[in-house]
Amino acid sequence: MRAIVKPAPGPGLEMVEVPAPRPGPGEVLLRVKATSICGTDLHIRDWDPWAQSHLRPPLVVGHEMCGVVEERGEGVSAPAVGDLVSVESHVVCHRCSFCRTGKGHLCENTEILGVHRDGVYADYVVVPAVNAWPDPPDMPYSIASLQENFGNAVHAASVPRVAGRKVLVTGCGPVGIMAIAVAKALGARSVYATDISDFRLELAAKMGADLTLNPTRTDVVEAVADATEREGVDVLLEMSGAPSAIDQGFSVLKPGGEAALLGLTSAPIMFDLDAHIIFKGATVHGVVGRKLWDSWLEMRGLLRSGAVDLAPVVTHRFALEDFETAFDLMASGECGKVVMFPDPADADGPLL
Amino acid sequence: MRAIVKPAPGPGLEMVEVPAPRPGPGEVLLRVKATSICGTDLHIRDWDPWAQSHLRPPLVVGHEMCGVVEERGEGVSAPAVGDLVSVESHVVCHRCSFCRTGKGHLCENTEILGVHRDGVYADYVVVPAVNAWPDPPDMPYSIASLQENFGNAVHAASVPRVAGRKVLVTGCGPVGIMAIAVAKALGARSVYATDISDFRLELAAKMGADLTLNPTRTDVVEAVADATEREGVDVLLEMSGAPSAIDQGFSVLKPGGEAALLGLTSAPIMFDLDAHIIFKGATVHGVVGRKLWDSWLEMRGLLRSGAVDLAPVVTHRFALEDFETAFDLMASGECGKVVMFPDPADADGPLL
Amino acid sequence: MRAIVKPAPGPGLEMVEVPAPRPGPGEVLLRVKATSICGTDLHIRDWDPWAQSHLRPPLVVGHEMCGVVEERGEGVSAPAVGDLVSVESHVVCHRCSFCRTGKGHLCENTEILGVHRDGVYADYVVVPAVNAWPDPPDMPYSIASLQENFGNAVHAASVPRVAGRKVLVTGCGPVGIMAIAVAKALGARSVYATDISDFRLELAAKMGADLTLNPTRTDVVEAVADATEREGVDVLLEMSGAPSAIDQGFSVLKPGGEAALLGLTSAPIMFDLDAHIIFKGATVHGVVGRKLWDSWLEMRGLLRSGAVDLAPVVTHRFALEDFETAFDLMASGECGKVVMFPDPADADGPLL
Amino acid sequence: MRAIVKPAPGPGLEMVEVPAPRPGPGEVLLRVKATSICGTDLHIRDWDPWAQSHLRPPLVVGHEMCGVVEERGEGVSAPAVGDLVSVESHVVCHRCSFCRTGKGHLCENTEILGVHRDGVYADYVVVPAVNAWPDPPDMPYSIASLQENFGNAVHAASVPRVAGRKVLVTGCGPVGIMAIAVAKALGARSVYATDISDFRLELAAKMGADLTLNPTRTDVVEAVADATEREGVDVLLEMSGAPSAIDQGFSVLKPGGEAALLGLTSAPIMFDLDAHIIFKGATVHGVVGRKLWDSWLEMRGLLRSGAVDLAPVVTHRFALEDFETAFDLMASGECGKVVMFPDPADADGPLL
Repeated sequence: MRAIVKPAPGPGLEMVEVPAPRPGPGEVLLRVKATSICGTDLHIRDWDPWAQSHLRPPLVVGHEMCGVVEERGEGVSAPAVGDLVSVESHVVCHRCSFCRTGKGHLCENTEILGVHRDGVYADYVVVPAVNAWPDPPDMPYSIASLQENFGNAVHAASVPRVAGRKVLVTGCGPVGIMAIAVAKALGARSVYATDISDFRLELAAKMGADLTLNPTRTDVVEAVADATEREGVDVLLEMSGAPSAIDQGFSVLKPGGEAALLGLTSAPIMFDLDAHIIFKGATVHGVVGRKLWDSWLEMRGLLRSGAVDLAPVVTHRFALEDFETAFDLMASGECGKVVMFPDPADADGPLL
Repeated sequence: MRAIVKPAPGPGLEMVEVPAPRPGPGEVLLRVKATSICGTDLHIRDWDPWAQSHLRPPLVVGHEMCGVVEERGEGVSAPAVGDLVSVESHVVCHRCSFCRTGKGHLCENTEILGVHRDGVYADYVVVPAVNAWPDPPDMPYSIASLQENFGNAVHAASVPRVAGRKVLVTGCGPVGIMAIAVAKALGARSVYATDISDFRLELAAKMGADLTLNPTRTDVVEAVADATEREGVDVLLEMSGAPSAIDQGFSVLKPGGEAALLGLTSAPIMFDLDAHIIFKGATVHGVVGRKLWDSWLEMRGLLRSGAVDLAPVVTHRFALEDFETAFDLMASGECGKVVMFPDPADADGPLL
Repeated sequence: MRAIVKPAPGPGLEMVEVPAPRPGPGEVLLRVKATSICGTDLHIRDWDPWAQSHLRPPLVVGHEMCGVVEERGEGVSAPAVGDLVSVESHVVCHRCSFCRTGKGHLCENTEILGVHRDGVYADYVVVPAVNAWPDPPDMPYSIASLQENFGNAVHAASVPRVAGRKVLVTGCGPVGIMAIAVAKALGARSVYATDISDFRLELAAKMGADLTLNPTRTDVVEAVADATEREGVDVLLEMSGAPSAIDQGFSVLKPGGEAALLGLTSAPIMFDLDAHIIFKGATVHGVVGRKLWDSWLEMRGLLRSGAVDLAPVVTHRFALEDFETAFDLMASGECGKVVMFPDPADADGPLL
Repeated sequence: MRAIVKPAPGPGLEMVEVPAPRPGPGEVLLRVKATSICGTDLHIRDWDPWAQSHLRPPLVVGHEMCGVVEERGEGVSAPAVGDLVSVESHVVCHRCSFCRTGKGHLCENTEILGVHRDGVYADYVVVPAVNAWPDPPDMPYSIASLQENFGNAVHAASVPRVAGRKVLVTGCGPVGIMAIAVAKALGARSVYATDISDFRLELAAKMGADLTLNPTRTDVVEAVADATEREGVDVLLEMSGAPSAIDQGFSVLKPGGEAALLGLTSAPIMFDLDAHIIFKGATVHGVVGRKLWDSWLEMRGLLRSGAVDLAPVVTHRFALEDFETAFDLMASGECGKVVMFPDPADADGPLL
């Protein structure tokens, strides 16, 4: 089968032929229908310090996907052959104290597809059956593929209480714009969004942001103060990892407010614990991955009810073999979610 | 001024002339713009056992209203003369341990307008300034009046987590149908509603119910099981106080589910604690009044964002002097919220 | 090996010789060191309606135990042969939506040892490795055996917030007296306890109850009101299942209070939802089983720190073959926890 | 009367004669029985940047105290003349949205005794009646005085769940050592404590710390890892404000852990949001002041039950007129809580 691999330490990816995997006990073999690109995949392609310390090539990369069950290993009772499934990319141990207490997203033995074991940018992939999440058969493949990433947004926006409240989302990458939609679906009174890309701010508006702010042109702190009668916001969803955005976000967070942090800063930053957290009596939640499997259940509810529509998130579609162009587009930031199809016939929209 | 009073113990109400009240320190005098009828007002008119044990006539009745600040007593800095305000009907002591810990709705010294002290079915009323909640000047009077009642629905639907979940509302009186709208605004995956009145079920559908069920014709337990792949609902909002509805509601509540109880049964009932609560590991919340003032803040958010539209709730408008017809209509149950206007010129819709 | 079995439908139990079980994949074979008797075991012996509907004889009975790992099935990496372990009696599926979201105690496919599959009143038993909870090697066998039951008490007393609060425990069977100790360990200001047995009330006092009340002689409602300056208690832990105790308990629960219900009523009862839950704005938690595995972790912390001492709970020890006397004692109610040892040499106290 | 005042901008304090205050409506006049010194008082004496920006001399300083009600202003119904009371130093507005929703500790119009209005280092002081918290008449004056400060410890240790868990307290000043006692009283499995002063570490051990660590001699991260089987702690209570302690504390916080931050850093610091909060899925709570009045109620419970004994916290007693020596001692850090008595006859222990 074809697969996109990191052949050896160093920058770059290659599409090569590799043997198709076989499902072991408790596993399923999936025929990949669609895959999508995450920021992590760019780090892997570019071989940044994080990638250098986490990957051991050679490895098939990629972790967001949907596919159809082609074959089941021993002892698998669900899903059925032929089912459409999305994939949770974190393979957890089910034995550590985190897994045993409903905190599988913190499993100390997590293996991530496309990072610690072969990933999904391929014609086929094998995953534990428990990681295959059944989708309705009529779900568009592009939406099914990005559910794993949507789960981060659901996780982040579900931890603080947003109902009836004013929310600021700093950073309008794919997770940011999906978090905007979730916050609105959960009854947020208003959602303000910041990003330095006007393209992304337009997507943010499409996903429901009431006010979009480009900090290269606008004083975000002042603008949010204006919009909130000088009170600030009740909730901050930090999706950028940018020190200036973090500082702006906490500056307009009300006393007693809640912040959910998902964007990575990649290095320690100067941070004012007194002003941003202590004097405010604020609560700050670190958000990593998706809650296994609460976030998936909540996603299902939000999508099936129509409370969230992810269609505008998918801005570009490619054949899997055109992955280099797709990655370059993703790196430019002038996009929402970029989806790649191993079989062009599976594309649920025009390919580029 | 004119006022509707309970002149003496016994059934019935009368419209009479009484002296207009004067605001004392910390109080405001309001010119009443609109008032609405609550089930409690029917109990008071009919002089049922509850009314007999709580009221000491003579008394001006009524507790749901909006009005304009006409005069401020000593020491009042807000709201301003001329402001449109809704009224929280529970006058609390601010001193007991409940008031001191953010649980004013449980204040042990609560006085309710129209029950323990003169109410709002009149041209003017005096209330503590802190009970006058500022409304946007363009809010329709009928909506502003029923906010106090809307607060019960917000309180009830906010206590359990409804986001992405399946919700059953048993009882589609005004609070029930408003709770449907709140549950949808907070991201509920689906809302099922039951009532024995088809008129009310139609209102329920207008407010967003995905499925309406009349237990006089339909097996509610079976129908909800069908609608939920035999799983049942995650959340029960019990608004009827009817033993059969309570039993149906708990029967379809999933293990680990949450129930919020607001409807009063008026007497002990046969209840299966084992099956309904213990074996299910369910959580049951008693809901009384509105959270002071969390529910009001949440209401403001839900209304200003447009997440909830209360317009369909107001089904009938009357001049205050036609209160007898209005009460009879309310007693029939073939209505949503019935609003009465002291000055017909203030009506925001055709009077009956 | 020897085992106590329910040979066929009908009252009674027998000790017989049966083949020792063998561990399958993922399972461990345990040599039983101590077992304890639960109320459920009495129902099984007496073949009450609950037992009739849940058991399919022949079956080895019993579900509380500790033992030493004798042999491991395929794929088991922990615990090690020779480890002392306690056993979680609920064998759950790890696949249903409850298991997947940290609510394994509500698993819809639960099998209970000694109820749905062979139990622990025997020389050996096989359980899934994941159900074997490692104990410190120096833990007394009697304490290790009753941990499973202690978990119910920890679960019940951990759900409401008891720190600095006044707590009423209705029902001083083994779970009740252990819940008293947990409430004290978690900082309860005072714990009041009721039971109709003076023997049990003495145990309650030993476990830390500040006030013990026998409703056959004392007006519980009045006595608790006296003890609490007429305010009532913040938390009710209902462990009796007796309608009168339930009514007393809720009568003295403060507005805004929390109740955890664990005692089973076995049939619907007359219950005043208005007075007991709704007007009070109370929160009621159904408590079933132990949280998998949060309760076990919390138990470990409470026992290892010495915050809870379970020694007084174990009032009687027997050789396993004297099970009939042990069961009769348990049925009399004049005991705390009754522990039986397959090998009398393992007894950590004098046998009766 | 005598009072310790900041006469004008600049370092230093003076004891002078000033007119005794008179209680206005809603206020009470208290005769001061005991006062204690807080770190804030040192900042005020030394006139650091914080003091320069918050105080407008002349002003009577001090905010921790107990006293006896000498006279009541108009409209005060409680407490009674002669009652012993402790004082909540934050005078809040009862009108802002924080005060209205049970978050009075975040009131946007807070006035603090001894900072924004005349304080308690005097023979008499006037405070709002609602700020006077009734104490049992037999409570030692030194304990009654430091309750306000104890409230910070209760607030901090109550926000995370500590029951059965491992807790690290970084910083063993008065609030730190009281937090140790609270954590133990709430069922913590073990409490580890760090400070650079051996005197304070000895106090920490007296208050219940299971392990004390001096980072000038010990590798805290390694020592905590050793003590916790390399797992780290579930809860961090940060009381030092020292960047190195903050870094050590977060380094040993487990994934999914909770941190409560109370110590002030006085300036932004380098902080690793990725490692310390995001990847760990940690929750961080800013802790300011006491919860009005939840913390006071919880304090009452913990003290009256005997779960917490504050006697070891009071290490030194002085006559009020010896305030300079008392302040110097407090500045040295070689003390727990330092209490000063306007009338030496009120001292509940030997004066220095």
